[in-house]
Amino acid sequence: MRSNKGFTLWFTGLPCSGKTSLSEAVGKELTAAGHTVEHLDGDRIRQHISKDLGFSKEDRDANIRRAAYIASLLSGNGIVAIASFISPYRKTREEARASIGNFIEVYLRCPLEVCEKRDVKGMYAKARKGEIKHFTGVSDPYEEPLDPEITVDTDQMGIPACREKILVYMEQRGFISIRSVFQR
Amino acid sequence: MRSNKGFTLWFTGLPCSGKTSLSEAVGKELTAAGHTVEHLDGDRIRQHISKDLGFSKEDRDANIRRAAYIASLLSGNGIVAIASFISPYRKTREEARASIGNFIEVYLRCPLEVCEKRDVKGMYAKARKGEIKHFTGVSDPYEEPLDPEITVDTDQMGIPACREKILVYMEQRGFISIRSVFQR
Repeated sequence: MRSNKGFTLWFTGLPCSGKTSLSEAVGKELTAAGHTVEHLDGDRIRQHISKDLGFSKEDRDANIRRAAYIASLLSGNGIVAIASFISPYRKTREEARASIGNFIEVYLRCPLEVCEKRDVKGMYAKARKGEIKHFTGVSDPYEEPLDPEITVDTDQMGIPACREKILVYMEQRGFISIRSVFQR
Repeated sequence: MRSNKGFTLWFTGLPCSGKTSLSEAVGKELTAAGHTVEHLDGDRIRQHISKDLGFSKEDRDANIRRAAYIASLLSGNGIVAIASFISPYRKTREEARASIGNFIEVYLRCPLEVCEKRDVKGMYAKARKGEIKHFTGVSDPYEEPLDPEITVDTDQMGIPACREKILVYMEQRGFISIRSVFQR
């Protein structure tokens, strides 16, 4: 089975809020359910599309606009684009929503202290020492979504519970069919 | 019917060699035959992805690399990407081929004089007056493909004949089924 319905799941949150792990977990389920899934994230887009860009507000915005354009090409053609970007600026996320259309904003809400304790790649430590400039949560702002489609509290819920919440939302809104996910 | 087989048709040639018209004609047939088709071209990519880039060799190469990445995302997910770019540098096209995989290079061969006579948007005239710098064929080189999958001589064949040549090639190599194109 292959679904024709493309959409974009847009994961936003602080560094180490769990975007990569959760997007992989959700992507796996959607693939198993017959959807065609493509992952977009900061590492990939900066490597292939945005080598010229840094981390000023202007550059971050340009990077997100490019990613949103690619997500719109994918989801406009029946692919599920799973986009994981810190994407700290509200207005830029709203632009992405407007340009993409079928857009589900997933906010990975997690207190800064918890994200910083996780510090998977030691980036917070470097940012605190001033070795990394423009680090979201430390020296750059993060503007929380005001009305995201889904909020998952990743300090309180594990990956499986977060994944379930997202899948149930998508099923209830008709983005996926319950049969495709739960009865395979 | 929806085909799962993605590939990239890469149209290269001088300005006014017919890339846009031919890519639209081929795209229409493929869509009618049940393929999911997305068009990528210089105007779109420069507007959405490469606003920062000009027309130096370095910038042209960067632009083509970004386009090739997007084409690879699309065709890797079952979409037919039709990419129309002057893409004047052989080595950069070969990079695109290597990174994309299912890649069909279509060379729109047309003498410079003929392209210049067409001059759809008056760009050749501006280039001759020096009002546009780095104009392929006038002040910038065009490196002909040495071994493209398909060559169409757009000064000698009309759009329908060129389109047919491309469709027959794709059918013979199994990229599309003859039934899907000719017996619908």
